[in-house]
Amino acid sequence: MTKKTVTAAICLIGDELLSGRTRDINTQQIARFLAPLGIPVREVRTVPDEQDEIVAAVNALRARYTYVFTTGGIGPTHDDITADAIAAAFGVSIGHDPEVFADLQARYDEMGTEFTEARQRMARLPHGASPIANPVSGAPGFQTGNVFTLAGVPSIVLGMLQDIGHRLEHGVVIHSVTIRAPGLREGDVAEKLSQIANDADGINVGSYPWFRSLGDNGVSLVARGADQDALEKMKWQLIELAKAAGSAPELVDGEGD
Amino acid sequence: MTKKTVTAAICLIGDELLSGRTRDINTQQIARFLAPLGIPVREVRTVPDEQDEIVAAVNALRARYTYVFTTGGIGPTHDDITADAIAAAFGVSIGHDPEVFADLQARYDEMGTEFTEARQRMARLPHGASPIANPVSGAPGFQTGNVFTLAGVPSIVLGMLQDIGHRLEHGVVIHSVTIRAPGLREGDVAEKLSQIANDADGINVGSYPWFRSLGDNGVSLVARGADQDALEKMKWQLIELAKAAGSAPELVDGEGD
Repeated sequence: MTKKTVTAAICLIGDELLSGRTRDINTQQIARFLAPLGIPVREVRTVPDEQDEIVAAVNALRARYTYVFTTGGIGPTHDDITADAIAAAFGVSIGHDPEVFADLQARYDEMGTEFTEARQRMARLPHGASPIANPVSGAPGFQTGNVFTLAGVPSIVLGMLQDIGHRLEHGVVIHSVTIRAPGLREGDVAEKLSQIANDADGINVGSYPWFRSLGDNGVSLVARGADQDALEKMKWQLIELAKAAGSAPELVDGEGD
Repeated sequence: MTKKTVTAAICLIGDELLSGRTRDINTQQIARFLAPLGIPVREVRTVPDEQDEIVAAVNALRARYTYVFTTGGIGPTHDDITADAIAAAFGVSIGHDPEVFADLQARYDEMGTEFTEARQRMARLPHGASPIANPVSGAPGFQTGNVFTLAGVPSIVLGMLQDIGHRLEHGVVIHSVTIRAPGLREGDVAEKLSQIANDADGINVGSYPWFRSLGDNGVSLVARGADQDALEKMKWQLIELAKAAGSAPELVDGEGD
């Protein structure tokens, strides 16, 4: 394998995530977008709408991972402070980007909506940042070095990701396969599973029990790795393991759920 | 206010969260459990099933926040390494807790299930840790200093939280109220909202737009604070703001969704 290791981290920004108001789904969206590009998410941090906290998290993450994705805080209201925080993290100034400003102005003119000072804030970018198109609601995200700043609303995040893939260096794709074993209990197979996992060459095995309701329980065994031959071999070992323990396993492509 | 500030952080442990396989709901569960105790969650970190990563995150968080809650990685399989990581983070040894061992043995004996070496792993606790009862599936979590180590399966996390509240110092309860304003756009009220938020004494105001489908969009304005009189005053200011912008706002107790 000559491809270099490419990694990502996510910084989720917003009091509403920490208060329990909002359940995060952007981590899953971003991770699933990056996986086929060979870019695993290695860490996620959720921080409040406070500049010092955002700056500290973004600076820690951008030094350590190839790419950082932030979500949230780029709207027009007083609690939207992410652009300022990113500028502060990079030690650069921030101001209206003339092209973004003109685009937004045209968009609001067309809608017959006043392009207020608050809406003009959404045209502010850290110096040197390049905009990330927002096909959903106009106001762009932006890329500053290796940091991609996205909206918080999940449908807008999905839209913005379309303007990101072409900017990323791709890494080694990790394939995965899931063996869903109804009725299986982890303790029934743990010793043998541990042996199989230890003997595996470059394949990582995860074991995820589920307990949905009485009688609807089991274990999903997920094998992950770059080598598809080794993954195929592991798949059959896990199927045999589940069968030997009395389960009728189902095969699911990828990570399953 | 004489009560001290009490804070919490959450460390979510698991490759399945980073791969996008599993969507986290434990953050929301834990945050909603802690809120009425006056303990706000201030940070969340998600890390892979790797000891060094878990140790670094737990040590950073436990030094900074009053309490840390970890989820995941305490089952019987090879990828369940959280107990060892917590012992390493605290620099203590790890071994079978005699009482937990006896309880689990009795439980498996009663079920007629072999208490295998893998299952015995679930009786291993860092030296000095105290078990946290698991009313769902038996194998306990544990408290090590200010760190509470919980399961990953959400129903088990909920069960374990019942054995945690009495161990926590309570802080100042932050109350919240949500004004749900259908049809409102953030840009329509951003200037006035900013003024209201700046003038507010000890009340924090968040603005959360939603875009569900064509015609189903709006903004939720959430006011949060310890002083219920000030919160009541803010509530009416936000209702008036939404009405003046042409919306027919609905009042929701608490954080809404």
